[in-house]
Amino acid sequence: MALGVGVIGAGIVGGGVVNLLLEQVDTLKRNTGLDIKLTHICEINQDNLKEFNLDGVTVTDDASVLNDSPDVQVVCELIGGEEPARTFMLNALNAGKNVVTANKKLLAMHGPELCEAAIANNVELRYEAAVAGCIPIIKAIREGLAANNITAAYGILNGTCNYILSRMTYEGMDFDTVLKQAQALGFAETPPDLDVNGDDTAHKCQVIASLISHSAIPYDDIPVEGITDITASDIADALEMGYLIKLLAVVRDLGDEVDARVHPMLVPTDHQLASVRNEFNAVYVKSDSADATMYYGKGAGRMPTASAVVADIIDIARRGNETAPPPFRYTNKKTVRDLGKNVGQFYLRLTTKDQTGVLGELGSILGKHDVSIASFNQKDPHGDNRVHLVMVTHDAQESKLRAALTEIDALTDIVLEPTHVLRILKEDD
Amino acid sequence: MALGVGVIGAGIVGGGVVNLLLEQVDTLKRNTGLDIKLTHICEINQDNLKEFNLDGVTVTDDASVLNDSPDVQVVCELIGGEEPARTFMLNALNAGKNVVTANKKLLAMHGPELCEAAIANNVELRYEAAVAGCIPIIKAIREGLAANNITAAYGILNGTCNYILSRMTYEGMDFDTVLKQAQALGFAETPPDLDVNGDDTAHKCQVIASLISHSAIPYDDIPVEGITDITASDIADALEMGYLIKLLAVVRDLGDEVDARVHPMLVPTDHQLASVRNEFNAVYVKSDSADATMYYGKGAGRMPTASAVVADIIDIARRGNETAPPPFRYTNKKTVRDLGKNVGQFYLRLTTKDQTGVLGELGSILGKHDVSIASFNQKDPHGDNRVHLVMVTHDAQESKLRAALTEIDALTDIVLEPTHVLRILKEDD
Repeated sequence: MALGVGVIGAGIVGGGVVNLLLEQVDTLKRNTGLDIKLTHICEINQDNLKEFNLDGVTVTDDASVLNDSPDVQVVCELIGGEEPARTFMLNALNAGKNVVTANKKLLAMHGPELCEAAIANNVELRYEAAVAGCIPIIKAIREGLAANNITAAYGILNGTCNYILSRMTYEGMDFDTVLKQAQALGFAETPPDLDVNGDDTAHKCQVIASLISHSAIPYDDIPVEGITDITASDIADALEMGYLIKLLAVVRDLGDEVDARVHPMLVPTDHQLASVRNEFNAVYVKSDSADATMYYGKGAGRMPTASAVVADIIDIARRGNETAPPPFRYTNKKTVRDLGKNVGQFYLRLTTKDQTGVLGELGSILGKHDVSIASFNQKDPHGDNRVHLVMVTHDAQESKLRAALTEIDALTDIVLEPTHVLRILKEDD
Repeated sequence: MALGVGVIGAGIVGGGVVNLLLEQVDTLKRNTGLDIKLTHICEINQDNLKEFNLDGVTVTDDASVLNDSPDVQVVCELIGGEEPARTFMLNALNAGKNVVTANKKLLAMHGPELCEAAIANNVELRYEAAVAGCIPIIKAIREGLAANNITAAYGILNGTCNYILSRMTYEGMDFDTVLKQAQALGFAETPPDLDVNGDDTAHKCQVIASLISHSAIPYDDIPVEGITDITASDIADALEMGYLIKLLAVVRDLGDEVDARVHPMLVPTDHQLASVRNEFNAVYVKSDSADATMYYGKGAGRMPTASAVVADIIDIARRGNETAPPPFRYTNKKTVRDLGKNVGQFYLRLTTKDQTGVLGELGSILGKHDVSIASFNQKDPHGDNRVHLVMVTHDAQESKLRAALTEIDALTDIVLEPTHVLRILKEDD
């Protein structure tokens, strides 16, 4: 059984896929029993192809050549971004080609359109590499846990952010210093916005939320906060109280609503997610029969990502002429839950004047809004009549906490900076 | 598309599978688009069936009824043990039924025979639940990492052992005390031998080793040590040096040989496997493209195990009439590597007389066998003229270390107990 593959884009990830398909023929044959053959590469930058021996492979700068070839059963879209990737994928699906992609942004923006085109043409759309690189998390959710109702997933999905937060944690460095080092070492892009602002994580959050809820979650409805406001003292204070700070994608299926959001979170040091360090990714999944499972590995990089792309190609080849129903459908219409409805514990960092009565005033405002304090720490004053107060609340409703903080931050005679708020992951989440 | 399932054995795991197939019809339909129908149960103990409403399900005490029924496409063998499970599975495969099992012992003993029967009858043999319960590790190895050469896997595969070692570690208790508590709480069997002697882990080690090496690894060739010799002081000493003690299945594919073994091991506290606590299982996999990945979850229990069994059933249903080659073949003939050939660091606990010159004598014997000491700690003497010496070696060949220890343990005038040896996992493994 032979399967022809055309690759669009031979850059970082695409080049890795070309490398695997050319160099690992024996491994693929042994692992799968299948003959998988790279037939076409569509690439406009010939420099990207210099390293490969492309005898027998058709090289083109016109993606429609792949769609017109009867030798191609799978088209891999690996150029990234919205256009022309979207048009290339739709054209391939409509030409009856199975499509494999690593394009999280496109899935987050246009997932339903692409999914419907695949179903209409009775072909597969696969995107294991779009979320958490080499980690088979899409496979785990769609297949490994197929007998489960998945109730929640918590993901560390951006290696750059996790690397930065890890270095801040273990070396006590501040955000800007670590970012500059990470950029110098090639661990962070310049500019770093897509990563550190949380948008990249949010793209992946959308994909996971849609899969778990079987619902087309509108990307723009997902609340996103990045890590740029996290300070070295937040991290030190959190550690003192038994928490690490991680940028998490949170997805909870709550029936009619899906709680889908991206923000930094305090994670208990003995929670499984706390052990995920440096550039590694992980997804922690809660489901009704299997209970807690976690999937860990490299979320980016040429070969880890290519590993996931080729796994998708193999799965398509293994299924042959598929008569089974499509592996995924949007069968529900759920909305994204308003953040204000969530109940949980919060970490608050307040900057106030160092004078008597401040704490009483803050406490009474919080109390009026049903927010009570579980622990409290006054940090050494800086000698400039300012103090940092670090508080952890008991369970509180977020809308009530926000109302309290609006009042508190308006006390500009004693509260000197807007209060910094971080959410806390529960130990049994 | 409908698929009929017959279950042999409705005990702990089988009952969980019956429960999922009866109670989660809507979930299965939504997650897969498939109609999966429980048609038959073969069970000799009617008490096991009392909790279920079995309208429309044929109940029998004769497994051949399932093989004779055209309604059954998948037979689940969930009675465990060697016979009659082996005969039931072979008969089902030879009757053209796909077979799903959780029977690690049978796979470890008779994997090639069962696999060949599946291939000969062009049906599938699946066993996700046999290794690490609900964790989709077989799927990850066979599918998620199919584009990789897997070079090694390190597994925490027995929840009872990991629970016992965790309690010993975090509460400083000794083995016997924890075991008794675990038995009282139902976390350990009575007798506990299959778990604490390492045999259960070795069954799973055989399955993983065979999968990774594509070779029928003889179960009896796998060296096995359990955890019964681990003392509270081993754990405390290891922790002091930055290690936790875990019972690991080690599999390394070394070309002509497979290093497959089960024994307790010192794991660096910042290694990913060190974060796997209590009854949880995990498998840490190294492969050429994906690099390190890890899979974590519950390795036992009714519903986690049933989750994996039903995932296998769904995968069979999804593939429909399969024209692809069998998902797994034993294409290689590799042998199990002799332990003596391995090179690594070792933890040694010696019990000697408290007198001058002992250390020099031990050091010179070790040195003669090319074993050098990386760190060394003399524990407070007990006041009875005995001391414990704890040593960590530099990299040494195991056969040379054993030769040295044979000489050392023969010095019965100064060495009072046989030296206790534990292997150390490297940080970058």
